[in-house]
Amino acid sequence: MSAPTTVVPLSDRVRRGELLSAACPSRDVLRHVTSRWGVLVLLVLAEGTQRFSGLRRRIGGVSEKMLAQTLQWLEGDGLVDRREFPVVPPHVEYTLTPLGVEAAERVRGLADWIELNLSRIMTARAD
Amino acid sequence: MSAPTTVVPLSDRVRRGELLSAACPSRDVLRHVTSRWGVLVLLVLAEGTQRFSGLRRRIGGVSEKMLAQTLQWLEGDGLVDRREFPVVPPHVEYTLTPLGVEAAERVRGLADWIELNLSRIMTARAD
Repeated sequence: MSAPTTVVPLSDRVRRGELLSAACPSRDVLRHVTSRWGVLVLLVLAEGTQRFSGLRRRIGGVSEKMLAQTLQWLEGDGLVDRREFPVVPPHVEYTLTPLGVEAAERVRGLADWIELNLSRIMTARAD
Repeated sequence: MSAPTTVVPLSDRVRRGELLSAACPSRDVLRHVTSRWGVLVLLVLAEGTQRFSGLRRRIGGVSEKMLAQTLQWLEGDGLVDRREFPVVPPHVEYTLTPLGVEAAERVRGLADWIELNLSRIMTARAD
């Protein structure tokens, strides 16, 4: 049987990602979602819409530059919606998209586990 | 009321982590578990014990150095057990601890979501 020559849309070819394969674009998504600040941005936005300054206040230790970069990644992946209001001074709001809500739920599962089991982990570390 | 002066064990003080707080040690655990290769190491070890060379083969693109560093982090957090057999040539096996099995389950939840939804994310990216 010869290989089909019809052009298959990208969305069909990547129907399921393969995180163990170096060339799979799912690796980029994983890198963004699990980036140092990506996890925390998703957790805070899961509570509701936030302004840039609100996110900075909630997330201890994040720099303005890294927060902006992280939001750009998540926006690029379609997980975060950026809404700019034409007012002075500028007013920008960030909200999870439906896709972002789903991603944040999985991230929450991992984050909750770490927060709830920290004492067990610290004990394991001390050994 | 005066502050109590008795020494509280670390494991009690850190009963629950606070990922949004910059000083909380849960941040380190999150960084290790969600590190570029940490996620993939947990996923592969969730399938069973592996030797170093086996992990390298399964995880596309990982360097020897980064894999060794990642395994050290996960071992330090009590998530991975390293077992060395006194044979020539050296034989080292890596296995998830019970704590590691739990962490890997949460990581799997996120990884599955990304793999299964990659086409939706790629569509969102193209927009």
